[in-house]
Amino acid sequence: MDAASEPEGLEASDDAAAAGPDSAGRSLDARLVRRLLAVLGNPPIEFELAWTRERIAGPGSAVAKLRIANRSTLIGILSDPRLRFGDAYSAGQVEIEGDLVQLLEIIYRSAPTGAHSGALARVLNNWRHRPRRNTLIGSRNNIHRHYDLGNEFYSLWLGETMAYTCAYYPTADATLDEAQVAKMDHVCRKLQLTAGDSVVEAGCGWGTLALHMASRFGARVRAFNISKEQIAFARARAREQGLEGRVEFVEDDYRNISGRYDVFVSVGMLEHVGVENYPELGRIARRAIGGEGRGLIHSIGRNHPEPLHPWVERRIFPGAYPPSLSEMMQIFEPSRLSVLDVENIRLHYALTLRAWLALYERAVDKVHAMFDDVFVRMWRLYLAGSIAGFETGTLQLFQVLFTGEENNRIPLTREFMYPH
Amino acid sequence: MDAASEPEGLEASDDAAAAGPDSAGRSLDARLVRRLLAVLGNPPIEFELAWTRERIAGPGSAVAKLRIANRSTLIGILSDPRLRFGDAYSAGQVEIEGDLVQLLEIIYRSAPTGAHSGALARVLNNWRHRPRRNTLIGSRNNIHRHYDLGNEFYSLWLGETMAYTCAYYPTADATLDEAQVAKMDHVCRKLQLTAGDSVVEAGCGWGTLALHMASRFGARVRAFNISKEQIAFARARAREQGLEGRVEFVEDDYRNISGRYDVFVSVGMLEHVGVENYPELGRIARRAIGGEGRGLIHSIGRNHPEPLHPWVERRIFPGAYPPSLSEMMQIFEPSRLSVLDVENIRLHYALTLRAWLALYERAVDKVHAMFDDVFVRMWRLYLAGSIAGFETGTLQLFQVLFTGEENNRIPLTREFMYPH
Repeated sequence: MDAASEPEGLEASDDAAAAGPDSAGRSLDARLVRRLLAVLGNPPIEFELAWTRERIAGPGSAVAKLRIANRSTLIGILSDPRLRFGDAYSAGQVEIEGDLVQLLEIIYRSAPTGAHSGALARVLNNWRHRPRRNTLIGSRNNIHRHYDLGNEFYSLWLGETMAYTCAYYPTADATLDEAQVAKMDHVCRKLQLTAGDSVVEAGCGWGTLALHMASRFGARVRAFNISKEQIAFARARAREQGLEGRVEFVEDDYRNISGRYDVFVSVGMLEHVGVENYPELGRIARRAIGGEGRGLIHSIGRNHPEPLHPWVERRIFPGAYPPSLSEMMQIFEPSRLSVLDVENIRLHYALTLRAWLALYERAVDKVHAMFDDVFVRMWRLYLAGSIAGFETGTLQLFQVLFTGEENNRIPLTREFMYPH
Repeated sequence: MDAASEPEGLEASDDAAAAGPDSAGRSLDARLVRRLLAVLGNPPIEFELAWTRERIAGPGSAVAKLRIANRSTLIGILSDPRLRFGDAYSAGQVEIEGDLVQLLEIIYRSAPTGAHSGALARVLNNWRHRPRRNTLIGSRNNIHRHYDLGNEFYSLWLGETMAYTCAYYPTADATLDEAQVAKMDHVCRKLQLTAGDSVVEAGCGWGTLALHMASRFGARVRAFNISKEQIAFARARAREQGLEGRVEFVEDDYRNISGRYDVFVSVGMLEHVGVENYPELGRIARRAIGGEGRGLIHSIGRNHPEPLHPWVERRIFPGAYPPSLSEMMQIFEPSRLSVLDVENIRLHYALTLRAWLALYERAVDKVHAMFDDVFVRMWRLYLAGSIAGFETGTLQLFQVLFTGEENNRIPLTREFMYPH
C-alpha cells in the first residue's frame, strides 16, 4: 500500500463520522494523525484521540486501536515516531486495544522499505540515534544498565535455565527450558566439544552455557563477563553444582582474554561489542584458538547494515548494534579465521521471546512490586517489539562456526550436528 | 619459518657441495635461488640449476626437487614468481621430481602470510594482475576461452556427470560420480525442491543440475549459459533424456534473466561474475524469486578478499575472482534477501580435484592428441595447484542458501537437509 497512490484510504472511519460534526476527523489533530499514518506506510490501525474523541483509521479493517492521551503526545510521536512512540506507550500516554505483537508486526510490515532508504535521512537518523561507544569503560556502563537490573527480575521470566539468548526449538512445541538446553547442545555439537577440551567464553551471562559445557561435555571453561550481578550469580551456581574446579568465572572484559584454548565461544555478546571492535575481537579469538581450534559466535543480526531500533538502543540496550553478515565478517576475515558454517535461526528467537513474554505477563505483579509502571510497560513493549522484529524478518539470529584457517580436521558433512 | 631470523637455513645442500668447487651454491645463480627461497618463505625444497649443476635447498629434508633449465627462466621466476613459475613449468623449463601437489602445498604453506600483506604491494600486485572485466561482451570472451575448449576434452576427466563444480562426498570413499549426484541432491534438498517448482539457473555448465532437478525432483527449469559449446551439449542431453519439455537451455547472460520463479540457483558461476556486479546479481535473484522464493549460490571463495592466483587468472580462468563472504554479502544485503545458511565444503573440492586429476592423467595421451605439450602441463599444474589451494585453506567453497526477507515458511532446523 502506497501513501501517494491511495490517499482515499485515509478517511476518518464511519464510527468517528457518526460521533458528531466535531469528531469527523477533519480537525488539525486528525490531519496530523493522517500524516503519521502516511509516515508509517498506512497500516490498518485506528487512532483515537482522547481529547477530541476523534477516530482516524488506515485502510482496511483495523487490527488494533491506539488511544492517544493528549495533543502533545501526538506531536511528540510525529516528531520522532521511532523513539517517541515507545516512550509514550511506556508512560501510558498511548493505550493499545488489541494484540500488541500483531500491532507492531503490522507497523513493521507496512513501513516503507525506505525506513532505511535515502542516504541523507539514514545518516541523520544514525547520527541522532548513534549508539553509545563500547570502550572498556563505556561497555561497563552499557552492560550495567541492562544486565544489572537484578537477577531476581530476570529469574521471573527467563525460565529455569536463566539463559537470556535465543533458544533452539527442535520442534515448535518444545518448552522454553527444553529449547534452551537444546540450544546449548546444538552449540556444543557444532563445536564438537569433547571431554577435556578447554573453552574460553566471551560474555557468559548467568553462566548457563559454561556450566552446561562442563557438566554435560566434561569441558574446562573460563568464562568472562563484566556484569557484576551475573558473575556473582554464576559463581554461586558453580558452587551449588560442584563445578568450581572446572568452570572459572572471570569478572573482566573479553578484551582481556589471554591464554590458549581448544574452543572460543560467545553467545549473545556480539550485540554489545560494536562493529569498530570486530577486528580486535577476531584477533582475540584467533590468539585464543590458534590455527586449529574451533569457535562459535551467536548473535542477533540484520539482513543489511542498519542500527538497532533507536528506542530499544536508548531505553533498553545502550550501545547495542545487531550486525549484518558482511559486518560480522570483519571479525573473521582480517584474522586468518575460516568460516565453516552460518545458520540463521531467527524464527527460534520469536518462539523464545513469546515464551518470555508469557512468563513476564504471568509474573507482572511481581515486576510491579520491583519497578514502576513505566518500567513494566517499557519492558512489555521491548519483548513484544522483539517478537515482531524476528517474525517480520527485521531481525536475524546468526550462529557462525569458524576455525583457524590451517585446520583440516573438519568433518566432511554436517550430519554430526544432527544425531538421531 | 621466517627468512629474516633463520638465514642459516639457506645453505647449499651437502650433495651440491660435494659436486665440486664450482657447484657449491656460491655462484650468482645460487644466490638468486636463495633469494627466491627467501621470497617463498624457505620451503623445504631443492633447486637444481641445469646449466651449472648446482643444487640449493631450503631448510629441512626436501619434499621435492625443481630442475630449472636455464638462467633466463630463473630470472623470470624471480621477477614475478606467482606468474612466471607456472609459465616456466608449462613450457617445460622447470621439471619437478616428487609429488606436484605436495610441492605446491609446501609452497603455499611456507608463503609469508604477507603474500597479501603490505598495502602498497597489494595494490601494485592487484593492478598488475587485474582480472579482465566481466561486461556483457567481456564475459562472453572470458567464458569462451575456458569453457569452449571442447566438450570432448572435458569429458575425458569430469566423469559421467560432466559436472565441473565441487562435488559433495557423503563419505571420503564415495566415487566422483556418486559425489556429484550427492552434491546435486544436497543442493536440491537445501532448496526444498518439490515437483512443479519453477527454477531459474544462472550458469548451467553442461546442464547436469538442471536435468537432475527435472528428472529427479520434477521441477521445471530455465537454465542460462553463455558458453555455446556447453549449451549445445546440454540441449542434446535434454533431447536424449526426453526432458525438452521441462528444461529449457537459454544461450544468454544471467543479466538477461526475466520472469518469476520459485527457486534461483547458481552453482559455480559466481567466480566469473566480478564483485562489481554482485549487487546487480542480487537484484536479478530477488526479482526472480520475490519475497518468498528460495535461492542458492555455490562458489569458490576466500577467507579474506584476495585476487585469484594471477597465473590461474591469466592462463586458465580469465576474469575470475573467488570472493570472501563479506564480498558475497554484497549480493544479498542490498536486495532484501535473507541469508539462511552458509556451508563451507572446501575439503570436498580437494577430493573432487584429486579425482579429476587422476582421470586427467589416465587420459593424458588423448589430451596430447588434442593439444600441445604446454597445454597438457598447464592443465596439470592448474588441477594440482587447485588441490593444494583447497587443502591448505587458500581457497574455500561456499554454498549460500537465501530467501526473500518476508519468507517465514522456513523449517525450524536443518534436519531436512540430512535425511536418513
